[in-house]
Amino acid sequence: MKRREFIQHAAALSALPLLGAPLLRRAPLAVDGARLNAWLASFDSIGRTAGGINRVAYSEADLAGRAFTLDLFRQAGLTPRIDAAGNIIARIAGGSSRATRAPILIGSHVDSVTDGGNFDGPVGSFAAIEVARTISAANHRLRHPLDVVVWQNEEGGTIGSKLAIGALSTADLDKVARSGKTIRDGIALIGGDLSRLGDVVRKQGDIACYLELHIEQGGLLEKAGLQIGVVEGIVGLRWIEVSITGVSNHAGATPMDQRHDAMLAAAKFTVAVTDATRAVPGRQVATVGRLTAMPNTTNVIAGDVVLTVDLRDLSTATLARFQQRFEQLGAEIGAATGTTFTFRALVDSEPAIADARVMSWIEQSAATLGLTRQRMPSGAGHDAQEVARIAPMGMIFIPSVGGISHSPREFSNAADITNGANVLLHAVLAADSA
Amino acid sequence: MKRREFIQHAAALSALPLLGAPLLRRAPLAVDGARLNAWLASFDSIGRTAGGINRVAYSEADLAGRAFTLDLFRQAGLTPRIDAAGNIIARIAGGSSRATRAPILIGSHVDSVTDGGNFDGPVGSFAAIEVARTISAANHRLRHPLDVVVWQNEEGGTIGSKLAIGALSTADLDKVARSGKTIRDGIALIGGDLSRLGDVVRKQGDIACYLELHIEQGGLLEKAGLQIGVVEGIVGLRWIEVSITGVSNHAGATPMDQRHDAMLAAAKFTVAVTDATRAVPGRQVATVGRLTAMPNTTNVIAGDVVLTVDLRDLSTATLARFQQRFEQLGAEIGAATGTTFTFRALVDSEPAIADARVMSWIEQSAATLGLTRQRMPSGAGHDAQEVARIAPMGMIFIPSVGGISHSPREFSNAADITNGANVLLHAVLAADSA
Repeated sequence: MKRREFIQHAAALSALPLLGAPLLRRAPLAVDGARLNAWLASFDSIGRTAGGINRVAYSEADLAGRAFTLDLFRQAGLTPRIDAAGNIIARIAGGSSRATRAPILIGSHVDSVTDGGNFDGPVGSFAAIEVARTISAANHRLRHPLDVVVWQNEEGGTIGSKLAIGALSTADLDKVARSGKTIRDGIALIGGDLSRLGDVVRKQGDIACYLELHIEQGGLLEKAGLQIGVVEGIVGLRWIEVSITGVSNHAGATPMDQRHDAMLAAAKFTVAVTDATRAVPGRQVATVGRLTAMPNTTNVIAGDVVLTVDLRDLSTATLARFQQRFEQLGAEIGAATGTTFTFRALVDSEPAIADARVMSWIEQSAATLGLTRQRMPSGAGHDAQEVARIAPMGMIFIPSVGGISHSPREFSNAADITNGANVLLHAVLAADSA
Repeated sequence: MKRREFIQHAAALSALPLLGAPLLRRAPLAVDGARLNAWLASFDSIGRTAGGINRVAYSEADLAGRAFTLDLFRQAGLTPRIDAAGNIIARIAGGSSRATRAPILIGSHVDSVTDGGNFDGPVGSFAAIEVARTISAANHRLRHPLDVVVWQNEEGGTIGSKLAIGALSTADLDKVARSGKTIRDGIALIGGDLSRLGDVVRKQGDIACYLELHIEQGGLLEKAGLQIGVVEGIVGLRWIEVSITGVSNHAGATPMDQRHDAMLAAAKFTVAVTDATRAVPGRQVATVGRLTAMPNTTNVIAGDVVLTVDLRDLSTATLARFQQRFEQLGAEIGAATGTTFTFRALVDSEPAIADARVMSWIEQSAATLGLTRQRMPSGAGHDAQEVARIAPMGMIFIPSVGGISHSPREFSNAADITNGANVLLHAVLAADSA
């Protein structure tokens, strides 16, 4: 064993909670992984239904989840407040004589998708609280203020973080969220203040850096047998709504060659979108996840179908190329099936590239703790992509078992969660020292 | 012009309402087409919504439609009653000295599909009332009693006519209809009597013959430029529910080659079912008209899809062969997409063949009235298929404009409706004389 490896090994051992005896040098600061995982286990009962975790933003379960989270802040000795946008935020003051030093920001979200899991969001949110608690408990005086944030309504389009950088339009406030409430009504419901939304907007220079721990939500780390993902960037995303108009008609009396079947056209399009996406090398993904047929009756040929395509890639040019290709496929399939395709952009978010220095702090922290790691893109969207527009950003991934997320089968191992929280802790310390 | 053609031409002219002057011989009896079409025009306002006609069985609009229909019976001098099954029925007594002569039965239904049209059902129901009125008004004494029936809940699975032949099981009574009510509750709501369902059951020999006028609901007559369809039989039908189980997962973080996408599997299956059905010569039709994806969210790969296949043909062997082929395709697509297909039979109705003598009466009536005609199968299901199990059955089709039905765009021309009613009238007279 070479000297460098030995130091890493020793550091890794000492990072284990409840072990802690220093071997060669003072043990690195470490979170209480048992406590963190116990919080997550308790949280699992909030919004749990037969279909999975349902804490969609502005629902009763979301309110319960936020109340639970506020309590964790208080248990950690932090004083949380709800800002005008409805985000939960708390600060540990910085020790620097320079009063103007910008805060380091860490956090995630606690809302969920419909029928989702307990790890997407809460892992990073609770780890951020635990990191702040660990730093406070160790009487470790940071030079920068440390802000811990729990963003509201991440799953409905990173609403809280968009508001925090002034990127949400007034029109967006009137959009109806999954809960059935508008975002405007949702903000009022969770304790925000619509009259002071301008107060929360951060500009370039307001934040020293932003760090977010999150489950991978894919299967790359597990497949590679690695513990930590160092996120290179968050893919850009297009949500495209496709409306297909055919002719509703009798399923028995209409010969196969006289149909204008919107369901068949939708099926051909879904297959074509998948084939086109797979035909070209690269990491682009495209998904038809939502489909509504009308009248949606067994004995009636569907006259109308509305479906969505979710398209993602790290390259804006690739997104544009596939979007164009899908519109071409729609026109071709429409002509072949006697139906009409119309396309409407629902969401259009650009790729967000992680900051090189922040990535190096994450990488170095993982190395110090003896954790295996790789650089990788994030296929999922995160609040970090919004904050990246005004501040250096980095994200830490931990493995998702089976690569499953947005599902009741979503799961991450307690040891990986603890590892991730410790990498976050040491990345914060590195950022503070930089 | 040959003599036979001249007679047909003259007969056709004299069949026009308000013309009536006999040319070569006494004018054939004729319905009042203007009155019949005015009834249909008034009926169009009942259950009309932005999406089309919505008079699904046991709904408020269905009740309103039945009240309207009861009033038409009374205007026609008939005395309607609601039988224990909830069917509306009225009789013109037969003049025969043989008190045991079985009644001739004519009628159709007035309920609709979701977002349907105003012609599927009401045309045949109102024409039957008008035929009875015309016979009464002309003081034409029939030998057989003439029963006019408006069956309840045809669109939900020919419920009223099934009850009338004792073919509905007790379990079926508890099935939930489109209105959200069970059939049991529906029968009580529309004035039936669940304790006396046995009273309405007709057996072989109880009905002299059954005649139903209906819109074609397909485009064969219009394409061929013909006025009357003489139905050879009603196709058999299979409704198959297909449940596809994959793995719900994140649409961004899951690489294309690591998915178990139930929506993609459903799309491939829908295309494959259509291709398989079209690959073999014949009149078989198969339709995927209903599809529900879960969680049906833009950014989540669908974990579950439930869809239905509606399969129809005049041959039982063909139905069985395609049903087997679809199950095979499901197994293949399941293996290829990492999903599981399960099949469940929802409805299974056998083909019903029209009676040769009844067909000849219809054909002869059309000929007498100078109407162009052809024999053809019915791709749609009808109450006639149930009555055919106990009595000689025949159906008269008139053209559907554009071949469209089960749609707000469903339409038939007034002249065709009048023609159809006159063919029904003369087929009744022929049946009575036979």
